Amino acid sequence: MSFAKLQKKIDEMNNPTVVGLDPDLANIPPDVMNACLEEFGETLEGASRAVILFNMAIIDAICDIVPAVKPQAAYYEMLGAHGMLALGLTCEYAASKGMYVIIDAKRGDIGSTAAAYSEAYLGTVKVGESEFMPFIADALTVNTYLGSDGLKPFIETATKNDKAIFALVKTSNPSAAEIQDKQIGDDKVYHIVGDLLEEISKDTMDEYGYTRVGAVVGATYPKEAEFLRNRLKHTFFLVPGYGAQGGTAADAALAFDKNGRGAVVNSSRGIIAAWKKHGTHFKDAAREEAIKMRDELRLVLCKNK
Amino acid sequence: MSFAKLQKKIDEMNNPTVVGLDPDLANIPPDVMNACLEEFGETLEGASRAVILFNMAIIDAICDIVPAVKPQAAYYEMLGAHGMLALGLTCEYAASKGMYVIIDAKRGDIGSTAAAYSEAYLGTVKVGESEFMPFIADALTVNTYLGSDGLKPFIETATKNDKAIFALVKTSNPSAAEIQDKQIGDDKVYHIVGDLLEEISKDTMDEYGYTRVGAVVGATYPKEAEFLRNRLKHTFFLVPGYGAQGGTAADAALAFDKNGRGAVVNSSRGIIAAWKKHGTHFKDAAREEAIKMRDELRLVLCKNK
Repeated sequence: MSFAKLQKKIDEMNNPTVVGLDPDLANIPPDVMNACLEEFGETLEGASRAVILFNMAIIDAICDIVPAVKPQAAYYEMLGAHGMLALGLTCEYAASKGMYVIIDAKRGDIGSTAAAYSEAYLGTVKVGESEFMPFIADALTVNTYLGSDGLKPFIETATKNDKAIFALVKTSNPSAAEIQDKQIGDDKVYHIVGDLLEEISKDTMDEYGYTRVGAVVGATYPKEAEFLRNRLKHTFFLVPGYGAQGGTAADAALAFDKNGRGAVVNSSRGIIAAWKKHGTHFKDAAREEAIKMRDELRLVLCKNK
Repeated sequence: MSFAKLQKKIDEMNNPTVVGLDPDLANIPPDVMNACLEEFGETLEGASRAVILFNMAIIDAICDIVPAVKPQAAYYEMLGAHGMLALGLTCEYAASKGMYVIIDAKRGDIGSTAAAYSEAYLGTVKVGESEFMPFIADALTVNTYLGSDGLKPFIETATKNDKAIFALVKTSNPSAAEIQDKQIGDDKVYHIVGDLLEEISKDTMDEYGYTRVGAVVGATYPKEAEFLRNRLKHTFFLVPGYGAQGGTAADAALAFDKNGRGAVVNSSRGIIAAWKKHGTHFKDAAREEAIKMRDELRLVLCKNK
């Protein structure tokens, strides 16, 4: 869906956050894992079943207060084809609960290959006379190193199917600067990338003024987030790096506009693996942390107004 | 496997090429597709079965003369979990025929997520006390926009399991210049990326002098390929853009060192979809084009010596 629809959900819940579903097997409680391995064996299928049950329970625990989930493809791919089935079922279940689904796969390629990725995650695939949606998602993260050829097929598919993409601009990791911060005249690489996104997506603006091409902007670089927020007026931001990676609510808040809109902040481990710290049931621990994160962001966004 | 092992295969066959297995459904002959759809229905499973049969037949047709295959993940992902099973079986079959397998997935992420991708494609995954290889590949393509954090987990897994990666440096598409060619002092972005690859992989050198981190360098930019060849002495090149994208054998040859080593040139559609132009059986058409490509590269590399 367009970012206007995500913003509406965020407004309704007064909660600009997304929960990252990164089911590293170490994050799945032993009782969930063991029950599945007992039934399906110590196999990739057994582990994938545990991932599905775990994700469904997390979604049940948060879907009335959190507008969006972000499954991280890597953790599903590491379970092979069974893992990809778990990814598909997770997305379907989240969508059935009314959540906005962002598949974090950071895909990127050119021409017909980019089109194939976009059809896999944001479109449909025709087999004979039948049509299928391989994965059900509202948005997909995309890498920007290949330039506009690597983005346009995604934008076309997104536009056709009322979906969106988030393209990497300023990532949250320590070494992001190695390429992204290099100086090009008066600008940096990530400025150029941000400008490129606004330029190639300007025809896709929705009623809130957001294009279909959002930007990934890490909470771990608050100054840069603030700079980009001022520069990219029509770009919705996906903000990783909150919590476990060190970004605070005050840092993340800089990615929002003066009305407290235009961004969604992600936390993954901080929510789904909270049971390890809390000692309570993983559903309760996840909900508690999701509420805490929501309230922290609410508070700081309210102060900034 | 290390690039030394790929170079050995290339030397043995006197053929520095890789066949891209990009099974766009339109590239699969109707008789193969229809037989599978009849048996498994007009479904993603039916299409995936056709992909497997098609790929196995292509591999059979070329494995005695071509050292490597490069499945492009996008075309498998677009068939969902069934497609990922087809990817896994394709890799397994190619490996069983002695081919070097490069999964072209252009993955890229940071920290534990990059580690998860690397384990999926170049490593093993532990479930309970059992260990699995989700996909069997010798090398994986990786995106570089995130800097060294996005590469190191791949290098670690590759080193542990005697595998390798190819990182994007100068891609073959028309808009590659938008980011990659931006001027940074005396250098361009892709120079900085290339230097970074040599720097972070210098401890992984094999007996031929290649590190475990290769570079993707498009044949469509011959001057840039020549420049990079001179600059990156220890980097093995994967060269897309030959054939359908417009790169010639003479262009691709500039990616090789003066001994005619250090690179492998890819063709995908030009080989696997040759049946559309030839009007012969797809296996014969693929073999004929694979031989033609081999001979063109042999000739030009021989002249350059």
